[in-house]
Amino acid sequence: IESRLPAVGTTIFTVMSALAQEHGAVNLGQGFPDFDCDPALITAVDDAMRRGLNQYPLMTGVPALREAVAAKIQTLYGRAYNPGTEVTITAGATQAILTSILAIVHPGDEVIVLDPCYDSYEPNIVLAGGRAVHVPLTPRTFRPDFARIAAAITPRTRAIIINTPHNPSATIWSADEMQRLSDLLCDTDIFVIADEVYEHMVFDGQQHQSIARFPELAARGFIVSSFGKTYHVTGWKVGYVAAPASLMAEFRKVHQFNVFTVNTPVQHGIAAYMANPAPYLELSAFYQRKRDLFREGLAKTRFKILPSEGSYFQCVDYAGISDETEEAFCRRLTQDIGVAAIPLSAFYPDRFEQRIVRFCFAKKDETLKTALDRLASV
Amino acid sequence: IESRLPAVGTTIFTVMSALAQEHGAVNLGQGFPDFDCDPALITAVDDAMRRGLNQYPLMTGVPALREAVAAKIQTLYGRAYNPGTEVTITAGATQAILTSILAIVHPGDEVIVLDPCYDSYEPNIVLAGGRAVHVPLTPRTFRPDFARIAAAITPRTRAIIINTPHNPSATIWSADEMQRLSDLLCDTDIFVIADEVYEHMVFDGQQHQSIARFPELAARGFIVSSFGKTYHVTGWKVGYVAAPASLMAEFRKVHQFNVFTVNTPVQHGIAAYMANPAPYLELSAFYQRKRDLFREGLAKTRFKILPSEGSYFQCVDYAGISDETEEAFCRRLTQDIGVAAIPLSAFYPDRFEQRIVRFCFAKKDETLKTALDRLASV
Ligand SMILES: CSCCC(=O)C(=O)O
Ligand SMILES: CSCCC(=O)C(=O)O
Repeated sequence: IESRLPAVGTTIFTVMSALAQEHGAVNLGQGFPDFDCDPALITAVDDAMRRGLNQYPLMTGVPALREAVAAKIQTLYGRAYNPGTEVTITAGATQAILTSILAIVHPGDEVIVLDPCYDSYEPNIVLAGGRAVHVPLTPRTFRPDFARIAAAITPRTRAIIINTPHNPSATIWSADEMQRLSDLLCDTDIFVIADEVYEHMVFDGQQHQSIARFPELAARGFIVSSFGKTYHVTGWKVGYVAAPASLMAEFRKVHQFNVFTVNTPVQHGIAAYMANPAPYLELSAFYQRKRDLFREGLAKTRFKILPSEGSYFQCVDYAGISDETEEAFCRRLTQDIGVAAIPLSAFYPDRFEQRIVRFCFAKKDETLKTALDRLASV
Repeated sequence: IESRLPAVGTTIFTVMSALAQEHGAVNLGQGFPDFDCDPALITAVDDAMRRGLNQYPLMTGVPALREAVAAKIQTLYGRAYNPGTEVTITAGATQAILTSILAIVHPGDEVIVLDPCYDSYEPNIVLAGGRAVHVPLTPRTFRPDFARIAAAITPRTRAIIINTPHNPSATIWSADEMQRLSDLLCDTDIFVIADEVYEHMVFDGQQHQSIARFPELAARGFIVSSFGKTYHVTGWKVGYVAAPASLMAEFRKVHQFNVFTVNTPVQHGIAAYMANPAPYLELSAFYQRKRDLFREGLAKTRFKILPSEGSYFQCVDYAGISDETEEAFCRRLTQDIGVAAIPLSAFYPDRFEQRIVRFCFAKKDETLKTALDRLASV
């Protein structure tokens, strides 16, 4: 059997989670909370199941949930999406991104990705018959380099994928950077896929710069987000896409023949739960406290702490500690020190090395303290 | 925006369900139960949520559920699949089929589909860059025509998709037919995608002929099934694929970059519920009773009743009643008579007309009786 994805192995997240489990390590690798969601959210899903909402919903998603999403985007970012024609509920953000790509990328098309980036983007592009064109963010500071992005554009460029707050670097794009992207694309027919799954985790009083705030980007863009990350239920696998009606029509053609639709009671439960905006409005403060707790502990270790502007990730530089590759260092950290992390090189196609690893701080305070105690011994 | 799927509109299921709702018709169109699942299944999912099983499961699915699936296949069909390497949980059968196709079909490859067939197959093949080669089942009797299948095979044939029990015709493949397919394929390197989502709905003492029973087919095949159909929860969107390890390895490469994984508490709930085989062992008898009730009523109408050997569908011939096309007849039936059905032409790429429409009898007895009262007036 000839592989469609010969370069693909098991994702680093699965590899490191398995290693963490094997060695009883604190798992700060794969990004997921080790605390539970609000019981009210579980009750809302259970209520929907008991009310008999267990058959196919509309292909596009439960209307109340699409309305809640559109209302949230309008309130927070000031753009009106029509919940009937411009919002679709997805089986998580990864499915949303593959589906967006399958909907717009034709064989031979190019898609610009900014490294480091999430490991699904390139295989998604390959499956659509396209080619990923890699443009690095600035090394160590992870800012978009607009001269390099501009230079990468060709007549075959169909789309660019951006991600803010950024996984793995925990940087966020500024309004100025978003405007520069808008200026760069406004005279092209390049689409934007905006992975905004960490939209509600932005720190130090800064604002999330959704493409919804930038008319030229929104007009050509798919916004992808994730309820799993916002509501501490990464295993529920439910997210959404918002896009102008003409793009959404193409998205839905693919969506209906990929997953067709998404778990009905979970959709109803989240729709009911979204009536209260507090959980997502307060999420930045919730995670900023954890970030600060984690950084205070890291300050007492030999790691060099990088900025964490958004997301639930914190990168550190271990250059003063070891000469190992990032992956070798992560494996040793997991096995010998008992803390799992993710090598940044896993997010680069050429496994670019910077001696930087990523921790996830979406963990109970006790978990973070145990990890910090262990990291202090490095 | 240039469409990847220019021929695709809204699926007939969505169209007819919307029309049924608009006209207050009894919806015997889209295939889903109008009764609820076993409350014990809901309790099992709720328990999993309350136990905090809300974060990412393994990419391949919850081990207990993969083990339950492998055990079921071995007991019923006599083939051992390794739950670690040969079973993967999917976000429903449609996702399983797209993912199988993306995993094995290369641009330019041909995939044989047997018409009439489910409307997702061809768009799935197109998205992989392949081409669907249509071979009709015999008109009106819906049997595989092996001479025509053999004639359709070329050096570019990568796979064939089969479906038994069959949607929409409600026929099932005999052991002899399966053996003939096996004989035809055994000297080729053609893969088999076997859509077996109605495996537990087979009537009159007949047996479901899973490809798992046929070593040559199983060795080259993906078995696709659906918990939603078996447990009366079509809206939960969870199914599975079983395939030999070498095929499954390719399937999983695509799966991890499509949905990555599937709702955790639903998987745990179904795994617990599967400890008791009665619900799926008794499903054929459950639906046979409904089929018989529905057919007795139909016998008093002017429709000609076709065989229903498996699935929860019943086809009828309306040739003596109307000269309209199948779709026009279904629309009128919905609007004027108050019963929604699905035109068989929707399952043919050229909208082949036979004056046959499909009813779904996965409905409460009262619903079936109301529909029959109305159909008697035709
Ligand atoms: C889908 S597993 C990976 C979770 C995640 O988003 C990450 O750790 O970056
Ligand atoms: C996914 S909606 C269609 C349900 C179904 O399988 C059918 O009616 O054939």
